[in-house]
Amino acid sequence: MQSTFSSVALVGKYMDPAALQQMQQELRRLTTHLLAQGLRVCVETHTASVLDLATVEQAPLETLGQHAELVIVLGGDGTMLSVGRALRAFNVPLIGINRGRLGFLTDLQTETMLGDLDLILQGHYQRESRMLLQSEIDYVAGTQQSAVALNDVVIKSAFRLIELEVHVDGQFVSRQRSDGLILTTPTGTTAYGLSAGGPIMHPDLEAISIVPISPHTLSYRPITVPASSVIEVRVVHAADAQISFDGQGQYPLAVGDCVRIARAQQEIQLVHPQDYCYFDMLRNKLNWG
Amino acid sequence: MQSTFSSVALVGKYMDPAALQQMQQELRRLTTHLLAQGLRVCVETHTASVLDLATVEQAPLETLGQHAELVIVLGGDGTMLSVGRALRAFNVPLIGINRGRLGFLTDLQTETMLGDLDLILQGHYQRESRMLLQSEIDYVAGTQQSAVALNDVVIKSAFRLIELEVHVDGQFVSRQRSDGLILTTPTGTTAYGLSAGGPIMHPDLEAISIVPISPHTLSYRPITVPASSVIEVRVVHAADAQISFDGQGQYPLAVGDCVRIARAQQEIQLVHPQDYCYFDMLRNKLNWG
Amino acid sequence: MQSTFSSVALVGKYMDPAALQQMQQELRRLTTHLLAQGLRVCVETHTASVLDLATVEQAPLETLGQHAELVIVLGGDGTMLSVGRALRAFNVPLIGINRGRLGFLTDLQTETMLGDLDLILQGHYQRESRMLLQSEIDYVAGTQQSAVALNDVVIKSAFRLIELEVHVDGQFVSRQRSDGLILTTPTGTTAYGLSAGGPIMHPDLEAISIVPISPHTLSYRPITVPASSVIEVRVVHAADAQISFDGQGQYPLAVGDCVRIARAQQEIQLVHPQDYCYFDMLRNKLNWG
Amino acid sequence: MQSTFSSVALVGKYMDPAALQQMQQELRRLTTHLLAQGLRVCVETHTASVLDLATVEQAPLETLGQHAELVIVLGGDGTMLSVGRALRAFNVPLIGINRGRLGFLTDLQTETMLGDLDLILQGHYQRESRMLLQSEIDYVAGTQQSAVALNDVVIKSAFRLIELEVHVDGQFVSRQRSDGLILTTPTGTTAYGLSAGGPIMHPDLEAISIVPISPHTLSYRPITVPASSVIEVRVVHAADAQISFDGQGQYPLAVGDCVRIARAQQEIQLVHPQDYCYFDMLRNKLNWG
Repeated sequence: MQSTFSSVALVGKYMDPAALQQMQQELRRLTTHLLAQGLRVCVETHTASVLDLATVEQAPLETLGQHAELVIVLGGDGTMLSVGRALRAFNVPLIGINRGRLGFLTDLQTETMLGDLDLILQGHYQRESRMLLQSEIDYVAGTQQSAVALNDVVIKSAFRLIELEVHVDGQFVSRQRSDGLILTTPTGTTAYGLSAGGPIMHPDLEAISIVPISPHTLSYRPITVPASSVIEVRVVHAADAQISFDGQGQYPLAVGDCVRIARAQQEIQLVHPQDYCYFDMLRNKLNWG
Repeated sequence: MQSTFSSVALVGKYMDPAALQQMQQELRRLTTHLLAQGLRVCVETHTASVLDLATVEQAPLETLGQHAELVIVLGGDGTMLSVGRALRAFNVPLIGINRGRLGFLTDLQTETMLGDLDLILQGHYQRESRMLLQSEIDYVAGTQQSAVALNDVVIKSAFRLIELEVHVDGQFVSRQRSDGLILTTPTGTTAYGLSAGGPIMHPDLEAISIVPISPHTLSYRPITVPASSVIEVRVVHAADAQISFDGQGQYPLAVGDCVRIARAQQEIQLVHPQDYCYFDMLRNKLNWG
Repeated sequence: MQSTFSSVALVGKYMDPAALQQMQQELRRLTTHLLAQGLRVCVETHTASVLDLATVEQAPLETLGQHAELVIVLGGDGTMLSVGRALRAFNVPLIGINRGRLGFLTDLQTETMLGDLDLILQGHYQRESRMLLQSEIDYVAGTQQSAVALNDVVIKSAFRLIELEVHVDGQFVSRQRSDGLILTTPTGTTAYGLSAGGPIMHPDLEAISIVPISPHTLSYRPITVPASSVIEVRVVHAADAQISFDGQGQYPLAVGDCVRIARAQQEIQLVHPQDYCYFDMLRNKLNWG
Repeated sequence: MQSTFSSVALVGKYMDPAALQQMQQELRRLTTHLLAQGLRVCVETHTASVLDLATVEQAPLETLGQHAELVIVLGGDGTMLSVGRALRAFNVPLIGINRGRLGFLTDLQTETMLGDLDLILQGHYQRESRMLLQSEIDYVAGTQQSAVALNDVVIKSAFRLIELEVHVDGQFVSRQRSDGLILTTPTGTTAYGLSAGGPIMHPDLEAISIVPISPHTLSYRPITVPASSVIEVRVVHAADAQISFDGQGQYPLAVGDCVRIARAQQEIQLVHPQDYCYFDMLRNKLNWG
């Protein structure tokens, strides 16, 4: 049995405004339950305001990691991605609670969350690290930008072909025309990479996969390289290229712009129920058998 | 031996401005050669002006089909697509001459074009019809638009997921999230459809293929239906959906917009050298063996 | 409303011996029900003997088609394939009843079969033809053999590479190394062809698809040709090549053996419930949405 | 510059008997050249006898690794695989010389081999380790067998479906029907795994990929796990299952037989020319651009 938790933070996000009332109820049930157990509970500011829970301790997402030993996220995989990135500096683990179907990253369901959380808070859990990708963009205009992704970095053109040149650790890999390129962590291989024909990678694998999207050359296939690799992608030809991180937000790229992608120094911590198994989750999500 | 030709039209287009001078030479060689054989030669207006060939008979692309029994196109597959669509009302056949590598639609190379054309003009050729797709867009705003494609109709979102609902002959087929959908003629199956994992269809096949691009549901696969089918694609959910025809020009689509795609009444006529074989072309272009 | 039926034949086959007793019950329920409606009922000899139903009219599978206007098959898709081939000369339609999950070819379930059949027998049904493939094998040893398939003809090597040369209508298509080749009707495209990466073809499409299995050359992709095509596949190199029809029975092929595959003159007739829709079946079987 | 070599061993194998004479010449050129440089040269016994080179030092393949600091292999990738496995206990590096086209494992061509080898012998080379897979078969009959593979372990049925159950590190992964399963090292990902739709893995990656061959369930996709994993594959249902190692030799498997696959303790050493680059080789072999 692992160590128990004495303080938790709560973040909630549902896309659907219709679900607001239901979420309020869930969050109240959760808060009441956690406080009743003598835990210190801190609610993310925006979550608290939306949900009219002014009496509890609050903190903005940026500092939430300082106030808790465990962050409980109510939302789907997309919320887990953004909260995870926001809290990456704090080394605090996350666990996700989803309404309805489980996600690739959300292990608990609202129906059974109280009992499942009790077990976790008592120390019956698994802890796991997930690698992140750090991207540095060298704009041909001279400026720079950096960003972090837990799932993937995607460079593609809006509608037309894009021609991209790829180097790995300074070695020329390819110069190919396609709809774009996905650079994915093991976590991201069950997201966009899978739709584009990429392999599934177990999260313990220290690797980055380079997955072309609808490549012109039919033998241009997904390539997996060690996580220690530095991947450079340069825009050779494109009309309206953009880059996105975890599919959240797009930033334009011009011909000549170069993106350097490598494993980030920080990682994201996840907490899973004691009986969590990656392959069970995979079978369930992919409807095997 | 088929009937011979007494009048030809010329259209030339090269993307690369650097190739202008060389194209001038090729077009002059061609025009001089054809006139010397007693043929009536009409040059497309824009081609003539760019190339400083003011003394020859000229006509705009829109009416070029009236002035010739055969249209000779200097350019690549993209030029063949746009000239073909522009001339579809005239039932006049096209033949393409490309610089360098042959295309899927361009049978001749500039190096050997004069001899090859002589044989064709003398009646040593094959003639072939290629079906077109007619698209009717019913905008949710109440307006309508129509367009024609020789290769494909592509409905996709710029960067995010799009959710599309498909009916065939009024029957519900699917409602799926993906990067988009390609509706392709047999001619188009060696273009974008192939990159997206669609099948190759022989041009004699009377069929339309529906090819999903990076679909979320992994069992959502290309479906081929008879060419007599009416396919309706409705935008259910999308941030920045667009539709394009033969990859040339994009038009925005909004949620609720519906595109009805069916075989066009008109077809495009192609002329091939006597020894042309579709499968030879395929092996060559796809680097088999 | 279509014409009604006055005589039916019954064929039953379950692989699982444990299901024998249950099948006896189902077949008795069915026979009793059909006789009670004044229908003439003929049971296939083997089905009758296994099921101890000696008092009803019987006929061997080979002539069953003479004794009925409709053949009711209890079993799965595999049983539909073999019964369909056996009865192809009689132009008598089939309908399949499966236990548990519906099949690609079996429309009814045992739970609801009596009511569903009543509607069909009263004329509330759709009728559909499915094309067959006729194969002629020219053995290099000088002998010949022919066979018919409703789904597919598969030529593959047991464990090693096979090299096959393909011609379509006398034109050379390819000479490629792979695990083998699937020649499939539209009906067969949802069977082995789909697993090997081939497209789905609507049954109304008059086409044959040539699907390579794990080809060495990555650009060697499924090709669909008109159903009027004659496809020749010659074994160029193989250690232990075999050919199978609908996955039922394997016959050895030697280097030099040549298989000629074309649409068969006969077709198989299917009867579907009035509300049958091919795409509904597809969505259900492929777990879309 | 790395250390130089003072003793080399030679192994030659060409499948084509017609090439025997040419190989004799190549091997003599090579031997003469190496001896002239003062190197100790040991020729594999079978190679020496076939090639009538009785006067040189000889050793059987099993002990060849004791007699040399570098093993030069004349042959293709298949020869590299079998020689590599045979010498795995000796920690002696291999370099391959192929006639005609370069292989995935053979870096040199006969035309330029003398100059290229001189540079390598003088210390201008790269050295690389490649992981192996160790397989232990637990036959349901009670016996056991073990084997080693450099590329892949393949479990498949000759012609029919096979149903396999997979566990990784004791965790249930899948129970699926397919044509079979490929367990591949990074080295093997450019071989059979690639044809079956698996990803390319850089040789530095410490991973094993599980690639299903034509799986029934379309969402059953290649999965890559850390090289430290123990993979168990059990035959659940099959008519004529077999297992093969590097595609060389097949051994029958019965229902209930279980294969345990893990990284072998030994590795294979390769020597590459100083300017060797994995990605250059990949582009060349896969015809990119």
